[in-house]
Amino acid sequence: MTDQNQKPIGVFDSGIGGLTVVRALLEKLPNENIVYFGDTARVPYGSKSPQVVREYTQDDTDFLLSKDVKMIVVACNTVSAVALDVVQKRANLPVTGVIIPGADAAMRSTKNRRVGVIGTVATVHSNAYANELKHLSKSVHVFSKACPLFVPLVEEGWMDFKATEMIANEYLFPLTTEKIDTLILGCTHYPLLKKIITKVTKGMVTLIDSGEATAGTVEKMLNEQNLRNTSTEKPNIQFFVSDAPEKFTAVGELFFGQKLGVVKRVSIG
Amino acid sequence: MTDQNQKPIGVFDSGIGGLTVVRALLEKLPNENIVYFGDTARVPYGSKSPQVVREYTQDDTDFLLSKDVKMIVVACNTVSAVALDVVQKRANLPVTGVIIPGADAAMRSTKNRRVGVIGTVATVHSNAYANELKHLSKSVHVFSKACPLFVPLVEEGWMDFKATEMIANEYLFPLTTEKIDTLILGCTHYPLLKKIITKVTKGMVTLIDSGEATAGTVEKMLNEQNLRNTSTEKPNIQFFVSDAPEKFTAVGELFFGQKLGVVKRVSIG
Repeated sequence: MTDQNQKPIGVFDSGIGGLTVVRALLEKLPNENIVYFGDTARVPYGSKSPQVVREYTQDDTDFLLSKDVKMIVVACNTVSAVALDVVQKRANLPVTGVIIPGADAAMRSTKNRRVGVIGTVATVHSNAYANELKHLSKSVHVFSKACPLFVPLVEEGWMDFKATEMIANEYLFPLTTEKIDTLILGCTHYPLLKKIITKVTKGMVTLIDSGEATAGTVEKMLNEQNLRNTSTEKPNIQFFVSDAPEKFTAVGELFFGQKLGVVKRVSIG
Repeated sequence: MTDQNQKPIGVFDSGIGGLTVVRALLEKLPNENIVYFGDTARVPYGSKSPQVVREYTQDDTDFLLSKDVKMIVVACNTVSAVALDVVQKRANLPVTGVIIPGADAAMRSTKNRRVGVIGTVATVHSNAYANELKHLSKSVHVFSKACPLFVPLVEEGWMDFKATEMIANEYLFPLTTEKIDTLILGCTHYPLLKKIITKVTKGMVTLIDSGEATAGTVEKMLNEQNLRNTSTEKPNIQFFVSDAPEKFTAVGELFFGQKLGVVKRVSIG
């Protein structure tokens, strides 16, 4: 093991949702140091054009590179969908997004090859999940739906509210009539709605959490490149955001499942 | 009348909502040329910290100044609440936000001096409407509520949806129990929800559209400074945005009530 192995994994997202990916990473790789960056000043990316998302992605990547990370995890579905190549070109490091791991897990789950994808407008319009699923199997049928209300509903804390269930039903009914047996949660906020989505889909659909799938990919990549941190010291998890940290700290625990510790504001872009 | 009078009125907003203010301006001042800027790349401002909003406001003001405007209307409630002084310092021109006109109209409307205010998190936390109302009358009681779901519901086009009514009820019930007789719609998106808000408040509350009130203030300021455009030529209304114009053009008609014409993308910041 060299110093290289002790370097942190860099994770970035447009905001707070990527904490569900960090949570999955910690469960699977409890020894790894992590630097998280959330671009909370410019969130959300999901409603912006690919050109703007690519510009912001450059800034996010440069920030993580300045923290001397050993690999980069793009926790943001939108960036994974429209700007993963920007990260790959800029960073001479192992890089993964959440799309390929999520699509891969969905193909391993589906029996009838009818897969649903939900996400932000940008993620769905990019067709990134659909393209990756088709790449894995030409015979798969993909049914996609943008769900722009889900992020603000989660951020309002209304995970268990009748109106949320009605909205979930409005969004998901067209997918269930297509008899999907697997649904990719293509946005890092959506795992917090698993309960209501399971209810609306009557428990008939397997939900794929792209963040969990991505943690498996990260483990595999670190093993292949002999980059695992085998130190038994308590890992260092650092959080950086581009807007005032108070809201991130307050809402973040919901996503992270535990206290966040210190969150620092940095200027980027 | 000089060339000065024919210069456009500059209007800016964080995104698309300010079009309801332009619409009100056109109705009241049909001869005026207008330049509109919507910072659609960085929308929304309402969930961001005052510091970040103030930085963005500088860029927005500089863009309008580059278009040689004769006055500036801050159509964004969030900017009006936390950064109006930034515009006033930077532009040596008449400037108005939407807060003072809205508060003023509410005080003229209320009989029982119990006034409600709804808006984004930033607008409500700023207490800008409450402070202005108290400034106008020490005896007024102000009841405020942030309604973060309203903007995405409007942008989804769900103005007439049962879940929207439930959410409106959730937000507004605490205000109606306080027996308000007047409610300030402190966000440029909210006039599109007038029907559902009237239903939820059982027609017992007068709704104040800050955009309409602001058009009255603009007329007054132009008259006072002898800046009205008396030309009978068809006025020139120009739209600029900081992200791809397609979405703005598509959704914009809903807010503007007519076709927008050409919308140009510009880089700022």
